[in-house]
Parts: sequence; C-alpha cells; structure tokens
Amino acid sequence: MNTLKRRTALQASGAYLPTQEGSAPHLHAVRPALHAGEHAIDNPACVIGPGQRCEHALVDSELNCRLSDYERIVRGRFSGIVDVLKEISALQHERDFAERAQRLAQERLGYALPQQLLDDAWVSGLDMKALHTHCIFQSFKVCVDRTDADQSLWLNRMALTPEFLAACGYHTVDVTPCADGRLQGLLPFVFRMAPNRNVYLKAYAGAMFDVEADMVDWGHREIERLSGGIPGGESQNYLKIAVYHFSSSHSHEQGCAFHASNDKQAVESAKQRLDELRIAIERTYGVGAAPDILLVGLDTDVDALRIHLPDADGDVNPYRYVDTAELYRETVGLTAQAARAHIAQRVDEAQNMDGWAQGRGVMIPGMRQLVLALAEANLSQIEYVIHHHQGRYTVLGHDEEFICAGEATQYVQMRNKYYFAHLDTVEEGAADVDVGIKIFTGLNVRHGLSVPVLVHFYYSSRVPGSRERALNRAKQVKAAIEARYPALVARELLTCRMALSDRFDTERCVFVDEAEADSGH
Amino acid sequence: MNTLKRRTALQASGAYLPTQEGSAPHLHAVRPALHAGEHAIDNPACVIGPGQRCEHALVDSELNCRLSDYERIVRGRFSGIVDVLKEISALQHERDFAERAQRLAQERLGYALPQQLLDDAWVSGLDMKALHTHCIFQSFKVCVDRTDADQSLWLNRMALTPEFLAACGYHTVDVTPCADGRLQGLLPFVFRMAPNRNVYLKAYAGAMFDVEADMVDWGHREIERLSGGIPGGESQNYLKIAVYHFSSSHSHEQGCAFHASNDKQAVESAKQRLDELRIAIERTYGVGAAPDILLVGLDTDVDALRIHLPDADGDVNPYRYVDTAELYRETVGLTAQAARAHIAQRVDEAQNMDGWAQGRGVMIPGMRQLVLALAEANLSQIEYVIHHHQGRYTVLGHDEEFICAGEATQYVQMRNKYYFAHLDTVEEGAADVDVGIKIFTGLNVRHGLSVPVLVHFYYSSRVPGSRERALNRAKQVKAAIEARYPALVARELLTCRMALSDRFDTERCVFVDEAEADSGH
Repeated sequence: MNTLKRRTALQASGAYLPTQEGSAPHLHAVRPALHAGEHAIDNPACVIGPGQRCEHALVDSELNCRLSDYERIVRGRFSGIVDVLKEISALQHERDFAERAQRLAQERLGYALPQQLLDDAWVSGLDMKALHTHCIFQSFKVCVDRTDADQSLWLNRMALTPEFLAACGYHTVDVTPCADGRLQGLLPFVFRMAPNRNVYLKAYAGAMFDVEADMVDWGHREIERLSGGIPGGESQNYLKIAVYHFSSSHSHEQGCAFHASNDKQAVESAKQRLDELRIAIERTYGVGAAPDILLVGLDTDVDALRIHLPDADGDVNPYRYVDTAELYRETVGLTAQAARAHIAQRVDEAQNMDGWAQGRGVMIPGMRQLVLALAEANLSQIEYVIHHHQGRYTVLGHDEEFICAGEATQYVQMRNKYYFAHLDTVEEGAADVDVGIKIFTGLNVRHGLSVPVLVHFYYSSRVPGSRERALNRAKQVKAAIEARYPALVARELLTCRMALSDRFDTERCVFVDEAEADSGH
Repeated sequence: MNTLKRRTALQASGAYLPTQEGSAPHLHAVRPALHAGEHAIDNPACVIGPGQRCEHALVDSELNCRLSDYERIVRGRFSGIVDVLKEISALQHERDFAERAQRLAQERLGYALPQQLLDDAWVSGLDMKALHTHCIFQSFKVCVDRTDADQSLWLNRMALTPEFLAACGYHTVDVTPCADGRLQGLLPFVFRMAPNRNVYLKAYAGAMFDVEADMVDWGHREIERLSGGIPGGESQNYLKIAVYHFSSSHSHEQGCAFHASNDKQAVESAKQRLDELRIAIERTYGVGAAPDILLVGLDTDVDALRIHLPDADGDVNPYRYVDTAELYRETVGLTAQAARAHIAQRVDEAQNMDGWAQGRGVMIPGMRQLVLALAEANLSQIEYVIHHHQGRYTVLGHDEEFICAGEATQYVQMRNKYYFAHLDTVEEGAADVDVGIKIFTGLNVRHGLSVPVLVHFYYSSRVPGSRERALNRAKQVKAAIEARYPALVARELLTCRMALSDRFDTERCVFVDEAEADSGH
C-alpha cells in the first residue's frame, strides 16, 4: 500500500491524533498510526501488543509530518523529470514544439530547458540524454535555491538546537558520517539537529575523517574561543561525533562498503580515528586541549542509533552503547515522563555494565544530557520510518540522482540525494570516483542516460582570492575526471558541471558556466 | 683566478686581518680582502676609491669564512661524485673491482655503492647512470645526517637570533621566498637568520604562498600564544616575510621565471599576496588579529636586498625601500658606529620619502629595529659574495643536483641545491614538475644521466597516522610522476625516491625503501 492510500484509509478510521498538547490544530498534526495486526511491519522497534499503536509519547509527530512534506517536495523535483521528458519527447514533431516544451518544463519542473536543444530537435531528434542531465542539475539547483523556504517547514522544531548544545557544554559540534548516500539526511532526520553555523558536517568514506583537516577546523574555533569570540566559550568544548553505519537486515551486503560490510571493523575504525584526533591535539597543544568525542552507529534500514557512552575520561568503547530501537520498543506504551525515566535508567545501566563505571567512571553531566536528548530525538526518526516509510526503507541500496565530487554541499540534507566522493584532486580520490562511475553505469549508462557529475568546492568570501582558487581547483578536477573516463565522455555519457559555494552564504552552489571558467571570472 | 689561488696570493701579501676585535686567532679569522685596482670586480656594492678595500666595519668576516667552509664542505659532497665514478669505471675490468670500488667510494664519498651494481658489472658493463643517481641521493643524505655538525660551524654567530626577533616583538617569523634554487640559502646566508623552530620557511614559485595554508600556520601559533604556550607571547605578533627576486645584471632573463622576469609583476604580486593574508585573517578573526608583514626583494646576482618599509599601519609599498647594496657602498669606509647611524638615517629618509610618513606614519619601533638589523646582517652576505664568489655568482642560472617534489627539506639551506616543485599531487603541480624535467633534460639527460627526483613530505610524530598518510602521499606522487614521463622511465632516465621527515625531528629526510612502501611500514 502506498503512503497516500494508507493515509487515506487511516484518516477514514479516525486514528489521527494531534501530537503537541495544546497546539493549534494543523493540517499536518496528524499521523498515520499503526495498530498491531493492522499492518505487519518489519521493524525491530515496532514490536507491540494487541491494541497498541506505534505512537511514542516522546515523538514529535508534527515534526515528522513536516519532514515528510519536505522529503516529498524535494524528491518530487527529481521524480517528475522522466515523465515530463517523455511527454516532451512525444511532442517533438509538433509545429510549436519548442514553446510547448518550455511551457511544460516551466509548469511541471519550474525551470526552462536549453532553447538550442529544442530548436535543433528537427535535425536528428531531441537529445534526451542532454535534457535529462540538464534537468537533474537544474532540479538540484532549485533545491539549493529553495533551501531556506524548504527548511522553514521544520527548522524551528528541531530538538537539538545550538542553545541546547551550548547548555550541554559544546560551542561546536563537528559530525562526520560515512559518505554513503544513506547517511545524507543525518542531521535533520536521524539526529533532529538543527543545521547551523556551529554544526560542521563533513562526510568521509567509512567515516574515516582527515585528522589533519579536523585539527584545522578545531583550531579555527579554538582561536575564536580563546580570543573571546564565542559567548560562554570559556567553559565550553568542541565535540567531534563520528557516525558509522550498518544494516540490521542485510549485515553482510548493505553495511559500510568502505569497511566491506564488516561492522566490527566499521565501529573500531571510527573509534580509533576519534582517539587519534584527541591524541593529536593533546600532543600538539597540551593535555586538556582535546575535544570531547562521541561514537554513534546508524542502522540504515530503520534509522535507529547505537549511542556509545563515553567514560569519565571521555573515552568511548565499541561495545558499551544504548540502542534506540530497543529504547523505543521498551517505552512505546509509556507516558513521556515514564519513558524518559526508563531511557535514563537504561543509559546509566549501560554505563555501569560489567563494572565499567567503577573502573572508568561515568560520562560528564553535559555529555549525559546530550546523549539522553539524542536518544529521545531519534525516537521521532524511528517512528518517521515506521509511519512515513512503511517500517523500513524500501530501497536499501543505491538510488542517487548524481555524483558530487569535491566537497559536499550542505543545503539539501536527505537520504540518497547523491553519491559523494570527497576529494581535492582525482589523483587522490580516483578510487571513490571509480566506485561512483560504476554505480551510475548501472543506474544511468545502461539505460542510455549520461552520468551527471557535479564538481563542487567551498571558498571563503572573507579570504581574498579564495573563490578564484576554488574555481581553479574545480576546473582541474573536472578536467581530470573527463580525462579518466574518455570512452564515456566520447559517447556523451558523462557530463561534468562545476559549482562553488561561499562558506558565508554569499553564493550557494552557484553553477559556474564555461565562459566564466575560461575568463577566470 | 680561483679562490684558492687568490687566497694564497693575498696571504703572501699580508692582507689578512682578524675581524673580531679581541677574538683569539683562528685559522678562518682572515679574509681575502680586495684592494681597488687589484681586482676589478663587477659588484654595485663594491665601488671604492684608491687604497680602499671592500671591508665593511659591520661585516662579520669570521662568519663569512665559516659559511664559506660550510659551503665548500656541502658542495664537495656532490662535486667529487663524477671524478670518483670515472675512477671506478676505469677499474671495472680489474679482478678485485668490487672491493676496490667500494673502498674508493667509502674513502672519497663517505658511503658504499650498491653491491649488486658492482657485482653485475662483468655482464654488460657498469651501470654508471644508476651509480650516479645513487650517489646524488646518498650525498644529499650525508648532508642531511650531518646537518647539526655542519651548522655548528656558524649557527651561534647568526645575527638574527630567536631572542632578537622576540625583542623586536615577533614570536614567529614565517618566510616565503620564491622556490627558485637561487633563494635556497636565504636564511643563513642572505638574512643571517638562525634556522629555528620559530622560523618557518616555505618556498613557493614566484613567492606566491598559499593564503589558506598560511592561515593554518598562523592559527597554530595563535592557539599556542592565546593559551599561554609562548613565553612573552601576549605582547608579540607573527611576522610574515615574502621574498621576491630579480637580477640586476640580466633583469629580463635571470629574474623570476614565474613572473616571466617581470620585476614589477614580481614585487606587486608579492605585496598583494601579503595584503591578502592580512585581510583574510582580519576578516575571519577580527581587526587587530592580522600578522605584521615585510616585503623583501633579493638581487640574486649579488645577494643584496631591497627592504620595503612598512608604514604605521603595517602596509608595505612596492616603491618605498632601502637597497642594501647602496647602503654597503655608502658606508664601506666608515666606522661601525658611523655606518649604523648612516643606515638608520637612510631608512628614516626612505620612510619620509615624498611625504609618506606624514600621511601614513612610520613603522612601529620593533619593525624598525628588525629592518635595521636585517640591513646590517645582509652587508655580511654582500661582502661574502664579493670575497668568496669573486664579486658575483658565476652561475647565474640553473645548476641544481636533483629535483625535490612535495615539501622542501630544510636541513641544507644553500643556493641551487635542488630544483623544487611544491605540490601535494602531480595533478596540481604538473606545470612545476614539467619545468624541472625540462631543466634536467639539459643538465642530465643530454649527458646520458638520469634525472634524480626526490619525493619528500613532512609529517608530525605528534599526530597518530600522520607518517602513514605522508608515506601514502609520497607513493601516490611518485607513481604519478612516473606515469607522466613514461619515455624517460622506460630508458631509466628518471629515478624517483621517496623520503619522509618528522616536523619534530625523530626522522630527518629518511629514505623510504620500496619494501617499507609496499608493506605500509
């Protein structure tokens, strides 16, 4: 049953309830709740008794509905492309073809098509491949341009706000998920953490972040903190979170490809990298300088978390964690107060597991506060998957729209938007690009469609010459990618575009046309 | 007349004088002084009247003799290679060839030759090309290993010590000369500045340093300063010096190749880059955060300096400078006190030139102190070239021993030791490597010798995994260089080796053999 049908059926059954007590009625303040027996869904969190519903007292179902709208809007900008192009194709022999095609594109997709492609269609047919690639890039561009409006749907309901993080003692949170597309919605969906200037998001294959680059990011904030540029910063710290992932249903096939779906390796590698960052900073800047760390695992089937609990020294352990799917299951029938108490109790039990706490102590109060809030926030995402994705994601593997090479844009944070290869040069990043091309050979090339590759870099408008250097880097990477796959380029099955973003938002993923690239802007 | 002959002739004439008053007699405390008329040398600084000698009261000629010894020792490790190999070649059909060859190498060069090359000589002759490359790398390695002993000759006589720089108000001095080989002796020779942990040296083609990388280096010291890690740091600043260069005798051929020997472009580009660094830091961290800057030009014919004078705001100007060749010429006959007074007067006149000082103010006292000391220190180098290089360098162009790609080693600081291509990947640095290969096609390949390429990177032993990452980078760059010049590689005319250094000196330019590279150490 698709979402729409299911929702209508449930609406008829009167199962909709407002979620926020005392909040004004709202179109979205309803949820397609599940009764046990009514749907048998395959989700380890949603194990309920007769008459029970997967409606957790701590879940913000209004927020879930808003996120669902957001997801539908963003995905809709891509999912309509093929249908529109098919309709346009059918018109190509009409007399007023170009005008009708443009009208259709503008109405249904919200942007124009390249006029010349339409005008030249009479010669050797419409270049559908080129139109498709154009639309993928344009639809993404619309998403970027609409970021603020789209996010306004849910931004002010996020549980983990900058103010809350500051109250926990963290002036900056630096999150590295795996670069896998399934983790692209991590912040707003899985963590319910507001995207913000004080939240850094940097995805790396296997969550294997660059210690040297992280030291630079940490150092940037440390200078601001030490020179009084962060209000309240004198008593706050920097928090680094690494997020590995696994698949509870297909652990050997749909885990982290970088770690060959070896979950043990994924968690231990992430822990080790976190330790290395702390050691590097302490050895370089002295004991006590190191950031706090948190290790989190994501079950990409259902978006539940394993939150690893630091000890009194801030060290994390691969085997001491709480599992939010379990917490959901254990607390789904309870009142908010009772559920919170139970979660806190389970966290403290995990801290004391096997006498750990006696030897290593318990985590600092601010970290405990954050862990509890993160666990609670994630319950909403668990229910989001239950209600808005029928219990678990139907597409467990790759389903991206394009390849992004360089630095990931942070404007659209949603599962499986694009395949991402983090790189400064193809010489370093060739392996990741090769994997991306292989995936898109299956997704696009075998259907005759081109592989859209967006080469994207950030610059700082505060640093003179930074944009020009970012553009030169983009040109260099574009040339290197095209040189690496000459057969695809010759058959017009690989289309590279370049885009730049300013870290301070004067430009957001602005596509650089070849004219600018040649003139050096 | 060569140096030795000239020295002996002058010694016989009794023209030698001790330079340091009251210092104990010392073999080197003598100088081959020039009388006007006795030698006609082509040096704009050494313009003297009848009976005058190019012996400046402010010059440390003892230090010059020690530097001359140092230069002779270091160059001798390379200049003997060809003779030794020729002798060995002549022996290759002798019965006890291998032993005799090894003995000769050990005695004359201080290291062994690869035994297998010697043992296999009977089959198809001695592989002279491979032996030559081996010797170039080994001789360099001897220089690196002997750094401390070699530098002890002159280190404690350097005029610009860390203590002096601190007294001027600078906790760190970050110098970027052009990557041109002629500037490789900048610190100890031209500036008489002691190599030190608080002096950063980072050469870039055209002195066009990387603003982002410089912000990181500045930030590193700023964290240490703000957290109390630099004694006295609270009232001190970071100083960035950019050094462009030109050739007073061949301005259109032997200037800066990066700037096409256009001196105006060289000086203006360096000034602009310095301004960009200040702007970038001020915009990012607030007004007052920016480092002080100094712009210096080097006449590579005679090692004289143009020191550009900052104004009260610290801004430099391409056309407001003092020229140390002029200062030398004007003060060569004076007492130390009178010469110092004259130099100070000329600096202050230059500050007030065209009413500048009225509009823009004069430089801060610490900077003035540093400028005066740098000008005075450089007089010694001017006299070094007059006395120890017959007035000007005989080889004005390229004369390097090998190519260094990656990060420059800082153990041997001497003019024209190697051609340097600063890069992280060949994808970015291809143009610089191509120029190097072109130069060495003339220097080596056309004589049948291989081009030795040393791929060198630094790592930090304080950062876990840093060495491994540096090694991976070196392997990648080595592979990319070999892939770029397949014809040379096939003819064994390009030989790449890899070496790593720890920033904290646990390893200095340690050659990585292939076995370690393959096993990942």
